[in-house]
Amino acid sequence: MRIAVLGGDGYCGWATSLYLSEKNHSVAVLDNFVRREWDKELGAQTLTPIRPLDERVETWRKISGKTLDVFGGDVTDYGFLSSVLKEFRPDAVVHFAEQRSAPYSMIDLEHAVFTQVNNVVGTLNLLFALRENCPDCHLVKLGTMGEYGTPNIDIEEGYITIEHNGRRDTLPYPKQPGSFYHLSKVHDSHNIAFTCKIWGLRATDLNQGVVYGTLTDEVARDEALINRFDYDQVFGTVLNRFCAQAAVGYPLTVYGKGGQTRGFLDLRDTVRCIELACLNPAAPGEFRVFNQFTEQFSVLELAQLVQTAGEKLGLKVTVDHLPDPRVEAEAHYYNAKHSRLVDLGLKPHLLSEALLDSLMNIAIRYRDRIEPAQFEPNVNWRQTSNPLALRGKRRTGLVAKATRKASRNGKSRREVPTFAGSDSPAENAASKGTFSSQ
Amino acid sequence: MRIAVLGGDGYCGWATSLYLSEKNHSVAVLDNFVRREWDKELGAQTLTPIRPLDERVETWRKISGKTLDVFGGDVTDYGFLSSVLKEFRPDAVVHFAEQRSAPYSMIDLEHAVFTQVNNVVGTLNLLFALRENCPDCHLVKLGTMGEYGTPNIDIEEGYITIEHNGRRDTLPYPKQPGSFYHLSKVHDSHNIAFTCKIWGLRATDLNQGVVYGTLTDEVARDEALINRFDYDQVFGTVLNRFCAQAAVGYPLTVYGKGGQTRGFLDLRDTVRCIELACLNPAAPGEFRVFNQFTEQFSVLELAQLVQTAGEKLGLKVTVDHLPDPRVEAEAHYYNAKHSRLVDLGLKPHLLSEALLDSLMNIAIRYRDRIEPAQFEPNVNWRQTSNPLALRGKRRTGLVAKATRKASRNGKSRREVPTFAGSDSPAENAASKGTFSSQ
Repeated sequence: MRIAVLGGDGYCGWATSLYLSEKNHSVAVLDNFVRREWDKELGAQTLTPIRPLDERVETWRKISGKTLDVFGGDVTDYGFLSSVLKEFRPDAVVHFAEQRSAPYSMIDLEHAVFTQVNNVVGTLNLLFALRENCPDCHLVKLGTMGEYGTPNIDIEEGYITIEHNGRRDTLPYPKQPGSFYHLSKVHDSHNIAFTCKIWGLRATDLNQGVVYGTLTDEVARDEALINRFDYDQVFGTVLNRFCAQAAVGYPLTVYGKGGQTRGFLDLRDTVRCIELACLNPAAPGEFRVFNQFTEQFSVLELAQLVQTAGEKLGLKVTVDHLPDPRVEAEAHYYNAKHSRLVDLGLKPHLLSEALLDSLMNIAIRYRDRIEPAQFEPNVNWRQTSNPLALRGKRRTGLVAKATRKASRNGKSRREVPTFAGSDSPAENAASKGTFSSQ
Repeated sequence: MRIAVLGGDGYCGWATSLYLSEKNHSVAVLDNFVRREWDKELGAQTLTPIRPLDERVETWRKISGKTLDVFGGDVTDYGFLSSVLKEFRPDAVVHFAEQRSAPYSMIDLEHAVFTQVNNVVGTLNLLFALRENCPDCHLVKLGTMGEYGTPNIDIEEGYITIEHNGRRDTLPYPKQPGSFYHLSKVHDSHNIAFTCKIWGLRATDLNQGVVYGTLTDEVARDEALINRFDYDQVFGTVLNRFCAQAAVGYPLTVYGKGGQTRGFLDLRDTVRCIELACLNPAAPGEFRVFNQFTEQFSVLELAQLVQTAGEKLGLKVTVDHLPDPRVEAEAHYYNAKHSRLVDLGLKPHLLSEALLDSLMNIAIRYRDRIEPAQFEPNVNWRQTSNPLALRGKRRTGLVAKATRKASRNGKSRREVPTFAGSDSPAENAASKGTFSSQ
C-alpha cells in the first residue's frame, strides 16, 4: 500500500514509518520537526541521541534497501498538505502530527490555545485535503484512551448502545477528557465523524493507550535509527520515565495514590496496530473507533514492576508519592474494551520481565544524558500559568511562532531522492549492543 | 447584578443587553462588530435598518435613563478581554460572541477553520480570564440544541444516566453536531466542563433552540433601538426567513421533505432565560446545561403556519421543497427535554397567530430592503467549497483578516460615557408604528 505518515519523525511516527517500510509498503514521511523544537523550549532532550531525519532515512536505505519519501512541512499549511497528497496519492494516511503532551497543553493559555488550534486545524486541513485529492483514501487517526476519562461504567470502543425511556440508539461514547490536549483529540474525533457522514470519508480513530518502549525490530538494526525516549515530566510517558528514574537512582514519581488506571501498550504493538488498520480499511462513510492498548495497569503497579526489575539489575529503586499535579481520580473503576484490533490479528507483546529488563538497559546505557530536574512535575492543572510558560518564552519565543516558522520552511519542500530498485546490502547491521536484540 | 454581555451588538445580544438593563442590572456590552462585516462579505443586510452601537446606546440612555458600558474589542484578544473583566468586575458573563451560522461555517475550509478557531479560542480566553480575574463570576454560555443532533432516544438536558453491564453512571449526553459551527459549540462545551472541574469555575451552557422574532418590549420602544432581522440563507433563522419570503411573494424555501424537527423559542424568551440563568447561578465547579427552547416544530409545520398567517394578511404564499443543501435526516424522532428553565420561572411566549402577524408585519414594513437572491440556499454541505467562498474573498479579503482588524481596533477601546444617576425622561418614546406594540 501507499501510506503517508504525518508526524513520521516523532516517537510513534518514526517506528511506524520503518515498520511499514519493512513490510514493503511505500511510505511517505511528513513532518515539520517542531517536536525537536519543543525539546529546546523545555530545555529537555530525548534520552536516546536521535539523528536528523535525513540521516535516519539514509541509514534505513543503506540497511534495508528501502526508501522513504520525506516531505518537510506543516499540516496546518493546507497548500503543503494538499500538494503532498496530490503527488503521493496515498491509500492510507496515518495522522500522528499533533501536539501530544497533556502537561504541555496545561502550561498556560498560550500552550492550551496552541495545542487545540494546531491539532484541530491540522486535522480539518487533512479532512478537506482528503476530500479534495483522494476521497477514497483511508484516514488512520491517532486518538487517545484519555478521551473517555474514567467513567464508572465499562468503556466501549467508540460507541455505546443506550436504552432510554423505552427507546434505543447507538451513540458516540460520552467523552470526559482530562487536559486541553485530550480535549483537542475529542474535538478531532467529532470533526472526523462529521466529515465521514457528509463526504463519505473513511476513517479509523485509534484511541491509543499509554505507549512504552523505544525499540522495534527495525529501530534496533542500527544506532542511527534510534527512536526517541522521552523521560521528562512533559513528554515522558510514565513507564519510560520510571525506567529512567530507576537508572539514575531517582525516586519513581508516582502522582498521588497511584491508583490511576490506564490502558498501556508496547511500541511494537502500536506499529502493528497501525498496519492492521491500514490493511483493513473502514468502509466509505464509516467512522470506526478502535481502543488501541493491550493491558491495564495502575500507575502504582507499574512503579512496583520497575522497582522489582531495577533491583534485579542491582539498582536501588524507591517510590515517591507526590501531590498529584493533575486533577484526576486517584482511585476509580476502569474497564475498557479492546478486542477489535485483536480480532484483526494483533498478537500483543505483553509487559514481561524481559521487556522491562530491555527498557531498563536502554535507560542505563544512556543515563549520562539524564537531567534529573526534568523529572519534577511542575505543570499543575490547578494553575493558569506554570513556570515552564516563562521558560518557553525566554528560550524560543512564542510557540505559535515556532510553528509558523516551520510552516514557512515547509514551503521549500525537502524530499529525499528515491532509489527504488536499489538492492544495496544492509550496512552497519552488525551487532550494536542493545540494538542487536531486545 | 453586574453582567457583561459578550457579543452585545448582535441579534440575541442586543435584545439581551437592553432587557437586562431595563431590569436594573449594570450591563457592559463587548463587541468587535464583525457581525456587521459579515453582512458586507455576504452582500446581505438585515431586513431592519440597525443603527451603529453608539447611537443605539445613546438612544437607550435617553429613553430609559440607563447606561450601557461599551467595550469595543475581540474576545480572541486575551489582553482586551482580561482588562475588561478586571475593570468591570461582572457577577455574570453572558457569552454570545461567536460565529453562529451553520451555513457560514460550511462555505469552505477557510470559513470552517475560522469558525472553530474563533469560537474555541474566544471561549478558552474567557475561561482563563475568568479564572485569573473573577473566579467566582458565573459564565452563561450560549450553546445550541444542534449539539445533540437527532438521536433516536429522548434528548436530556446535558447529561444522561446510563446503565451498562450492571453498572451505572451519569455522563455527558452524546453529541452528534451537524455542521462545523455546531461542532465548535460541542468543542466549547467540553472545554468549559473541564475548567469547571479543574478550576472550580461555575458555568451554565444554554443549549438554545432556533430563535424567532426581532422585537422585545425594550427594542420596540424606539426605531433607533431596532434589532437585527436576518432573512438571508446564511444567517436568517428559518421562521424569520419564511416571513420575509411571504412578504415579497417568494416561495417558502423548505429543504427536502421539511420533516426536520427542532426546538424553537421567541426572542423574548431568550432574554428572560438569560436573566433566569444569571439570577440562579451554577454552583462553584458546576457545569450545568439547560435546553433553552419552548416548543418543537418541523420545518414544514412552520411553513404551513406562515402560509396561513400570510393569507390572512392578503398575501399569496407558496411552499417550495428544494433539495436539502444540508446532510441531515429529513424525518426522524425528536423529543427534547426543556423543563429546567421553566422550573426557574420561565413563562414561555408560545408561537401564536398574534406573534406571527407581528413578525409578518415587520417583514412587510421593510420589504423594500429584501434582496430575493439572498433566499437561495447556495451553501451545500456536500461540497468543500461553495460560491460564497469566492464572493467573500472578492469583497472583503480573508475573513480572518477582517477579525484581526477588528481585534486591532479593539485595542483602542471605545467606551460610552456613563451618565449614572441621569433621570432624563424617555424621549422619542412616542408611537413608532410597529415599534409601539407587538
